[in-house]
Formats: sequence, C-alpha cells, structure tokens
Amino acid sequence: MSMARGRFITLEGGEGVGKSTNLLFITDWMRSRGIEFVQTREPGGTPLAEQLRALLLEHREETVDPTAELLMVFAARAQHLAEVIRPALARGAWVICDRFTDATYAYQGGGRGLDLSLIAQLEQTVQGPLRPDRVLLLDLDPAQGLARAATTGAADRFESERLDFFQKVREAYLARADADPGRYAVLDAARPLAEVQQRLEVELQSLLG
Amino acid sequence: MSMARGRFITLEGGEGVGKSTNLLFITDWMRSRGIEFVQTREPGGTPLAEQLRALLLEHREETVDPTAELLMVFAARAQHLAEVIRPALARGAWVICDRFTDATYAYQGGGRGLDLSLIAQLEQTVQGPLRPDRVLLLDLDPAQGLARAATTGAADRFESERLDFFQKVREAYLARADADPGRYAVLDAARPLAEVQQRLEVELQSLLG
Repeated sequence: MSMARGRFITLEGGEGVGKSTNLLFITDWMRSRGIEFVQTREPGGTPLAEQLRALLLEHREETVDPTAELLMVFAARAQHLAEVIRPALARGAWVICDRFTDATYAYQGGGRGLDLSLIAQLEQTVQGPLRPDRVLLLDLDPAQGLARAATTGAADRFESERLDFFQKVREAYLARADADPGRYAVLDAARPLAEVQQRLEVELQSLLG
Repeated sequence: MSMARGRFITLEGGEGVGKSTNLLFITDWMRSRGIEFVQTREPGGTPLAEQLRALLLEHREETVDPTAELLMVFAARAQHLAEVIRPALARGAWVICDRFTDATYAYQGGGRGLDLSLIAQLEQTVQGPLRPDRVLLLDLDPAQGLARAATTGAADRFESERLDFFQKVREAYLARADADPGRYAVLDAARPLAEVQQRLEVELQSLLG
C-alpha cells in the first residue's frame, strides 16, 4: 500500500504580522488531531541552511549583491528540501514551514527588485514541480507591522530596511495570492486574533479532506 | 579618455598541480612589469564570499545537496564579481584569480555530475558576457596530484573525495580546454617547473599585446 504524501503548508507575511503566535495555533491544531508534522523555517531548517540564514541576516560592511542574496536563499532551500521537507512529505508527515518561496518573490523580487523570471527559473531548478498545498498569508499594513516588530529585539539586515521596501514586499505577496486564489489564503492580520485563528482553522480543515 | 579594461586571467587545476608556486611566478611577472593587478581566489575574495567558502569546504554530518553546493558557489561568485573583479577590471587593473567558473564545470559538473546546461545558465545569470581572457590550466594525473597534496595539511571536504572524482574533474577541465583552445592554455604540470614557467611567461606576454 502506498502512503499518501503529507500536506505542505507555508506561513507567509512581512514583519510583525503575528507569524509566531499563529504558528503555535497551527501546530496545536495538528497535534490535537494526531497529525504527524514537521515544523520548520526558511531560510534554514538544516545545520548548513541555518548557517546560510545567519550569513543572510547579519549586518555587514560590504554591500550584498542582490543576485548573491537570491542564490544563497535558493542554496539553503535546496538543502532544506533534500534533507527535511521531501523526506517528511514522502513518509506522510505534514510540513508547516515559516516562510518559503513566496517570501523570495516578495523580498528579493518585490523588495530588491530582482527579475521575477529569474526567481521562477531557480524555483523550477530547485523544487521541480513541488509547491505548497496551501500558503497562509498574514497580511498587514507594514507601518503597523514594523511598529509591532520594533518591540521584539534588535533588527536584522532585512528588518532594518525602510518602509517602502516593506510596502513592495506586501504588494508582491498580494500579487502572488491574487494570481492563484485557490492555493492562497489571505488573512487580515489587523483583525482580532480569535477571528484570524477561526479563518486559519477553516483553512486547515479544508486540507484534511 | 576611456581606460582599457584590465586583463582577466584565471589559474585552474586539480589538487597538487602547483597552483600556489605558479601564482607567485605570475604575480612576480606582473609586478616586474609595473602592471596594476588584483590577486584573488574562488570561492572567496570578499568577506561574505570567504564565509561561503568556509561553509563549502568544512566537513559536515549532513549530506550536502549538489544543487545547494552549486548555488553557494555562484552566490560567492556574484558577490566577488560585484565587489572585487568588475571594479578592478573597470579601472584597468588586471585580475589573477585562483580558480573561477571552469572549476565549477570541473568539480560540480564533472565531479558531482550536475547538468552542464544548469551551470551554463547560472554562469550567464551571474557573469553576463564576462569570461576570463585566458585560462591557465595546470594539468596533472590526479594520482600524482593527490600524492603531492597529501603532504600539505588536513584535507577539506573536496580534497577528501576519491580518486575517480578527481579523474572526472580532470576530464571536465580538459574538455573545456579542447572546446575553446584560443582561450585556454593547458600546461603539463608533470614537467619541470622551469619549463612550465617558460610556457606561462609566453602566455602572459601574449596578453600584453
């Protein structure tokens, strides 16, 4: 008997949208239903990929070339897929990943202005046909998000970008969701948490079917 | 008056072919002729690219996905080009680089068996039309090269590969040279050093013209 592939869910959004709180809600939901799952994040998820994450996030004297940044992100992703995500899905576990390729389209595409067709080419090279089954996008006005995020410690190299960078990130996320509404759920993160989580639960239930 | 672009020279070859000794000869030659030059290496050449080099070379528990390795190499290259190589060439300096994209074709293409068309696609993305003016390839039977290299300290993740890996690396290097003899000089590293350096000098002289 062949085992069904696990569900692949990603949680996306800019700074301060409440990803951590909602991740906890999602993993609690899976645990309460006895679903085997792997919780992971990008960039990161393996020792090598986490080292790449550290190189990406740290402040540095030299200007980081946008193409170098993009290739580091996809290098970490290739490693993460090979070591963690594909094996988990293959054995039937669900994967819940804190950011994935939509973040690359949003941050490196929207934010840095890199060519989206280059990102699509690398996505194809690294992922083949694999895409998340559901992208949960927490959407919030970046001015509100940054105000929330500012209360949680020192800003990394991305968090130190200016407001207009995050506006472009948000627009790129929303454009992705608009283009494929069946696969994306856009959740208004300005609404009360209970309401957001009610929406989240409906989305998760729909994946059980 | 516009300044002529500097010459871009790369030194290539497997383990133990004598790159260090011959690099010294090349830089002495340029110094004695008053040529402004930048000596650099790949992977590496900037603080970020050197950090990527360290991640690439260190031994690790997890298996490194070959595509992840390839993308890390090109990430380091994009950074190196932006911060060091392009600015040097633009101001008229020569660049002598210890390994470059031919090493990627040889190690990741030949050695790891990655698709050469993927390497060519990344080369185009990262370099545009920029290619070395002359590739100086030190060629040696890998069995001899490894015997020489074994005397110079602990082996890194690449140096720890088996003989058949280095045979494929050598074949890939030679195939590159065969396909474009005008741009490559294949130097027999088994010959006496004085003879190799006589050949090197002829190659360097030809770049002055």
